[in-house]
Amino acid sequence: MSPVKTLKSPASIRVALLGCGVVGSQVARLLTEQADDLTARVGAPVELVGIAVRRLGLARDVELPEELFTTDAHALVTRADVDLVIEVIGGIEPARTLILAALETGSSVVTANKALLAEDGPTLFEAAARAERDLYYEAAVAGAIPILRPLRESLAGDRVNRVLGIVNGTTNFILDKMDTLGSGFTEALEEAQGLGYAEADPTADVEGFDAAAKAAILASLAFHTRVTAADVHREGIAEVTASDVASAREMGCVVKLLAICELVSGPEGPAVSARVHPAMIPRSHPLASVREAYNAVFVESSAAGQLMFYGPGAGGSPTASAVLGDLVTVARNRLAGVRGAGESAYADLRILPMGETQTRYHVQIDVDDKAGVLAAVALAFAEHGVSIQTVRQEGRGDDAQLVVVSHRASDADLSATVETLRSMANVRDVSSVMRVEGEAE
Amino acid sequence: MSPVKTLKSPASIRVALLGCGVVGSQVARLLTEQADDLTARVGAPVELVGIAVRRLGLARDVELPEELFTTDAHALVTRADVDLVIEVIGGIEPARTLILAALETGSSVVTANKALLAEDGPTLFEAAARAERDLYYEAAVAGAIPILRPLRESLAGDRVNRVLGIVNGTTNFILDKMDTLGSGFTEALEEAQGLGYAEADPTADVEGFDAAAKAAILASLAFHTRVTAADVHREGIAEVTASDVASAREMGCVVKLLAICELVSGPEGPAVSARVHPAMIPRSHPLASVREAYNAVFVESSAAGQLMFYGPGAGGSPTASAVLGDLVTVARNRLAGVRGAGESAYADLRILPMGETQTRYHVQIDVDDKAGVLAAVALAFAEHGVSIQTVRQEGRGDDAQLVVVSHRASDADLSATVETLRSMANVRDVSSVMRVEGEAE
Repeated sequence: MSPVKTLKSPASIRVALLGCGVVGSQVARLLTEQADDLTARVGAPVELVGIAVRRLGLARDVELPEELFTTDAHALVTRADVDLVIEVIGGIEPARTLILAALETGSSVVTANKALLAEDGPTLFEAAARAERDLYYEAAVAGAIPILRPLRESLAGDRVNRVLGIVNGTTNFILDKMDTLGSGFTEALEEAQGLGYAEADPTADVEGFDAAAKAAILASLAFHTRVTAADVHREGIAEVTASDVASAREMGCVVKLLAICELVSGPEGPAVSARVHPAMIPRSHPLASVREAYNAVFVESSAAGQLMFYGPGAGGSPTASAVLGDLVTVARNRLAGVRGAGESAYADLRILPMGETQTRYHVQIDVDDKAGVLAAVALAFAEHGVSIQTVRQEGRGDDAQLVVVSHRASDADLSATVETLRSMANVRDVSSVMRVEGEAE
Repeated sequence: MSPVKTLKSPASIRVALLGCGVVGSQVARLLTEQADDLTARVGAPVELVGIAVRRLGLARDVELPEELFTTDAHALVTRADVDLVIEVIGGIEPARTLILAALETGSSVVTANKALLAEDGPTLFEAAARAERDLYYEAAVAGAIPILRPLRESLAGDRVNRVLGIVNGTTNFILDKMDTLGSGFTEALEEAQGLGYAEADPTADVEGFDAAAKAAILASLAFHTRVTAADVHREGIAEVTASDVASAREMGCVVKLLAICELVSGPEGPAVSARVHPAMIPRSHPLASVREAYNAVFVESSAAGQLMFYGPGAGGSPTASAVLGDLVTVARNRLAGVRGAGESAYADLRILPMGETQTRYHVQIDVDDKAGVLAAVALAFAEHGVSIQTVRQEGRGDDAQLVVVSHRASDADLSATVETLRSMANVRDVSSVMRVEGEAE
């Protein structure tokens, strides 16, 4: 926290809002409804002075004075009388240009923009540092759940070793339906769409793009290292089958889409592994009981041990709550003429390539039901240094299914094993490969 | 956050530690082991300059230089070269005198002392405000679980309506054993003592004193109102029987010792209810799955909805993690020459007397198995305005057991009902009264 030199201490905090959709309208509502409390908590009145929208005259979820609205977002964020800009437009542009302009003009910024932070966070953090202004973004990960502040501040005296997050409500809803109702992926997706939990084009959620952006932000904070979305290995849930979910159940597990951020030690020193993929976790794991569209982030640290943060991961009103929490801190900082903690990237750790990442695997293999096949399959694992923990074989007539669960192995060795298996004469298909996570070490 | 006028910006942050027991020794260990990370995160080296203990020369859990130790705590906290005092002695005195002396001398303070904060917090907060120094205490509630910072900062733009906390690990361990193994209270307590989860004199835990102190702290923060331990209605778990736990199970519930802080609206405006007692909660409630000695705090707020924070609620190393998290924030504030948010008591709400508190009740009544007894019992409830939701009657020979679950009623009305029941000729005993909490409204 370094002193900001050129700030007058404003008598009120004047706020510009970029975007008035699902989140923005709730931010505007809370700013109005909670005005007295905000004044008491900030130490000065908080005044909404303008709202930039794409089109004027639309019906909004909340009644707001017409004269606040403008379509000229750039003029709004560069107004000299604005102290604090809230960005809830989302997406890369024009959000990036507007945030940079706001910082350069001397405003502090609160944003919920995970995609932008994960793609180009360092540009924003550097601009905030140059301008000596705050850039806060609690709402960007897991909606209303306070997770960035605990990682950055509460655990600042501890060492975080692993973060496992269910950070996408859509995919958790789908996987929960598959688990509880035995639905297939398509059926569960349609139910999610019908209930408004999934969009018409569900790609960003289902393919893990949304979770990967959040993984990048979590990993950056947890390990004091710049991690962008491009550093995050990403697999979605579209390939998860009812059979995978049933296999998981037999193992006492449940399938979840996890954002995993790990501190791993290797021959070249500590490194960061950041990845998003479906995984089987034991039903006894606290994350296993996270149902429907809820989110949760599980943190393992050296001194504190295992912590979990649970709540609604999306929605206008929960996301607005997180935005307003940041607003109070940033406004207080502004009145005191200081900045909060900026980017912390001092550790500057190596990003571990996915191939070097170690975990356990659940592999389902369709084979000819002949003598010697199991031995050949076991040999393929052994050749690549992948040690087998359990094998289960089920005959089904002239073919059979083998379910192999491995000990910890590298992703590269496992991939090579699968390639070998697929080339074998008596192997019909490797029908499923899924990682097993969250077990006691 | 108001600027602190008289602070030099120290080249290093010099720390005095009061207490070197279970928590203190872990604080000292982390200060040493994490020194490089702390320097990077604080922006200056953090130096442990002295440790006050009752007796010198004892074996400690951690290897520390002999010359750091002193038995003169007062001299240590009033040293002019100390910037920050960590108090982990616990109890009221000498902790209070030492913290006040530290603040007066110009040191910032981090404490884990729930008893002192709950009994006499305002005195400490006023001293901190006068001295323009920080007083942080995340470790005082729920050990390593970041809960005070989220309540104070992350939810600062929201309105908290209710906090339900499992904030005492000992009692949660005992009740969990009673639930999962069917043990009686005494047997479960003995197991907890054998495993080190309960002390030889378990009064503070079992009778709810520890939880009540934490409830006072949580309610103060959640509702911006001074709430002390004396304001918290307190009942322990010593009266909880195996039969209560079995009854709860039949209702799809589990018995937990809850710290409950509620914002309630009444004829005289909003008020705060703060209480600690065993209660039945539905097994589908997120708190129901908090097992063994873990803690969790469930927060319901207007905008964010339902949040839960889960983790180890005690232990040297987890508590030390929370202390160090505060230390980093306080040290950064000190380097920047500012204070963090101090006490916030602007709402100054009325404390609701227990008699006015509304909830549902599970009442077990042993009666003579005669015609007309059920009608007489039902009449007793009706006379006191307590509406019955369900009654279950089980004959057992010449006596019978009635289990009544009420709709929401005031504690005063329910108590009056129980008194009437006890005076009735055909009522042998009101064998159990337990509140039912955590249900969807």
